[in-house]
Amino acid sequence: MYTVNYLRKFIQNLFIKIGCSSTDASTIADVLIRAELRGIPSHGLLRIPDYIMLYESGRINPVPQINIVHETPSTAVVDGDRAFGMIAAKKSMQIAIEKAAVVGTGWVSTRNSNHFGIAGYYAMMALEHDMIGIAMTNANPLVAPTFSVSKLLGTNPVAVAIPAANQPPFVADFATTPIARGKLEIFSKKGLEVPFGYVQDKEGQPVNDPDILKKGGAMLTLGGDYEHGSHKGYCLSSVVDIFSAVLSGANFGPFVPPSVGYLPVLKNSPGLGTGHFFGAMRIDAFQPAENFKYYMDHWIGTFRNARPPDKHEKVLIPGDPERELERINSEKGIELLPAIEKEIRIIGEKYNVKLA
Amino acid sequence: MYTVNYLRKFIQNLFIKIGCSSTDASTIADVLIRAELRGIPSHGLLRIPDYIMLYESGRINPVPQINIVHETPSTAVVDGDRAFGMIAAKKSMQIAIEKAAVVGTGWVSTRNSNHFGIAGYYAMMALEHDMIGIAMTNANPLVAPTFSVSKLLGTNPVAVAIPAANQPPFVADFATTPIARGKLEIFSKKGLEVPFGYVQDKEGQPVNDPDILKKGGAMLTLGGDYEHGSHKGYCLSSVVDIFSAVLSGANFGPFVPPSVGYLPVLKNSPGLGTGHFFGAMRIDAFQPAENFKYYMDHWIGTFRNARPPDKHEKVLIPGDPERELERINSEKGIELLPAIEKEIRIIGEKYNVKLA
Repeated sequence: MYTVNYLRKFIQNLFIKIGCSSTDASTIADVLIRAELRGIPSHGLLRIPDYIMLYESGRINPVPQINIVHETPSTAVVDGDRAFGMIAAKKSMQIAIEKAAVVGTGWVSTRNSNHFGIAGYYAMMALEHDMIGIAMTNANPLVAPTFSVSKLLGTNPVAVAIPAANQPPFVADFATTPIARGKLEIFSKKGLEVPFGYVQDKEGQPVNDPDILKKGGAMLTLGGDYEHGSHKGYCLSSVVDIFSAVLSGANFGPFVPPSVGYLPVLKNSPGLGTGHFFGAMRIDAFQPAENFKYYMDHWIGTFRNARPPDKHEKVLIPGDPERELERINSEKGIELLPAIEKEIRIIGEKYNVKLA
Repeated sequence: MYTVNYLRKFIQNLFIKIGCSSTDASTIADVLIRAELRGIPSHGLLRIPDYIMLYESGRINPVPQINIVHETPSTAVVDGDRAFGMIAAKKSMQIAIEKAAVVGTGWVSTRNSNHFGIAGYYAMMALEHDMIGIAMTNANPLVAPTFSVSKLLGTNPVAVAIPAANQPPFVADFATTPIARGKLEIFSKKGLEVPFGYVQDKEGQPVNDPDILKKGGAMLTLGGDYEHGSHKGYCLSSVVDIFSAVLSGANFGPFVPPSVGYLPVLKNSPGLGTGHFFGAMRIDAFQPAENFKYYMDHWIGTFRNARPPDKHEKVLIPGDPERELERINSEKGIELLPAIEKEIRIIGEKYNVKLA
C-alpha cells in the first residue's frame, strides 16, 4: 500500500528522468493517479511500462511542441507532436475551455497524440469553469462493427461532465463496447467464461472465451448483437472515431497505432498518431449558471430517488461510484497488484528512480 | 399506394386547415414524408392523428412565435412557443447552421416544443452546407435507468450526419434503447414474444412480453442489462435529456409531456414542453473541406469493404439502409397500412381535406 503522494512523486520523477518537463511529468502523474483513485486501474500505473517502451522506441516525444494548426473562434485542430496523450489532451481541453469562455463553446480535434488515460479527467476539467466538458478518443482496433469479422474500431470511450449546485457533478465516462478491454483479462485470469455478447470468434460467431482476441476474435460494440442494437453502438463508436481522427487528421479505425510498444506500427497509415476530440460548453451560454445548476440538482435528485427493483440496488448517477472510490482511496492509499509493482520497480531502477 | 406528391399535398392542406402557415405545413409534410420514404413509418403519417389531437386540445400552437431567448456567438436557447416539433426544430437547426457559418460551430437547445419526427432530418440539414449536423430530443418516459423500476427516460434518439465526397454521407440516427418503441407494437400485433433485453416487468424482472408497458413494465436502455452495459445506454440517454431539457428549460426525464393527446399533461412540471438539442460544425473550421471529405470516403470505403461473417451479410455504413429505401420508395410511392389510411381519411374529412 502506497500513499497517493508517494506514488505521484515516483511517477513525476520517472517521467522527468526520461526528459519530460516537470509540469508535464506532473500532469502524467495526475492523470494516472486519478485513474487509480477512481477505481480504473486499467488506466493507471499499469500503463507505465507501455508508455516508457513507446518512448524508448521513439514513438513518443517527451519534449513536444504542441500547436494549433487551424482554428476558428469556436474550434481548433491541435497537433500533439507525438506527445504523451495526457499532455496533448490537457492542452487541447484547455484550448476548448478558453474558446468557450469567449464565444460560448469550444471544440478541439487533436491528432498526433497517444493513449491519454481516462477520458473523464479532461471532461472534468470544465467543471470548475461552470462548463460542460466532453472528451473522447479513438483507440487500437479490437472491435468489429456489426456484420463484420474485421477489427476496425477501438473501445472508443466518451466522457461527459456536467456541473450541479449542491449535488456532486454528473460524470459519465464509458467505452462504446459492453465492457472495457481490461475486463476480458480479469475473466481470463480467474479462469472464467465471459457472458455472450462481449466477443465473437474469427468467424463472427458468438463465444464466451475471454482469450478470443488472441485467436483472431473481436470485441463487440455496445448492444452486443444486432438484435440488441449493436449497430447503435457501432454508430456511436464510429462518431467518436470520425470526430477524433477524420476531423483532426489522425489515424482512424483500423489504422490507429498500438498503445503498446511491442506491436509494430502500420506502414502507410493515412494520418498522424492517435486522435481525440474535446468540447467545452459554458453553461451561461444557454442560461444563468445558477438556474441550470438548480435544475441539475432537481434532475439528479429525481433519478437518485427512483424506486429500485429491490433493497440491494439503487439508481446511481453517472460518476457516483468513481467519486466514492476516490474519496476512500485518497485517504486509504493505493494498493498495487504485485505484478504491476514489480514491473514499475524494474523500470524505476533502470532510470534510477526508486520505488520503496 | 399513394404517390409522394399526393400525400405531401394532403398533409400540407390538412395542416393549413388547422391554421398553420403554408411554409410550416410544408415543413411538417416534408418531415413526415421523409420518415415514410426512409422506412421509419413509426414517425410518419401514423403520427398525424396524435398531432391533430394535441392541436385540438390546445397543447400545440399552429401559429407560434419562435424566438431566441438567450444567445452567444456559438449558442442559443430557442423557445418554440408550443409549436409543432418540426417547426421549432427546423428553425433551431437553421440557427445552429447560421452560427456555425460565423464562428465555426453552432449549438442550440430548444424548449417549449413537441414531438419532432425523425432526428435525422435535422442533422441532415447541415450536409448541404459542408457541415456535420447533430440532432437529439428527449421523449415521453418509457425507459427505466439501470437498477430502477421507475420510467424516467424516453427513447431519446441521437442523429449525426457527416458529409463525404463521392461516397454518400454518413447518417446515424438511433434511439438510445435496444429498439424503438414501435417495434414492441409490431411484436405484439404478430403475437410474438420479444427477445430478453428489451423490457422488464414492474418489479424490474427481465421479461419477453411485448405488452409489458401496459402492465407497469418499462423499456431498457441500450445494453439491455447491467452485465451488458445498460448503464452506458443510461449515461447516453441522460446526456440527451440534459442537453435537450436542462440546458433549455424544457421538461426533463419523467416530466416530458406525452406526445399523444389522450394522456394528461402533468401538473407542476418543472419546464416548458419537450426539449431538443442541435449542433452544426463547419468542416472547414477543422480542415479544408475537400481534405476532410477525401478521408471520409476513405473511412467509409474501409468499413464498407470489411470482411463479413458470411455471404448473406455485409457491413453497412450508417444511413445506407434508409437511403436505399428512400430511393426505392420515392419512385414506387408510399403504401399506408389500412388502419392508418382509415384514421387519416377520417381526420381529413373532419377538416374538409379529401384523401382519395
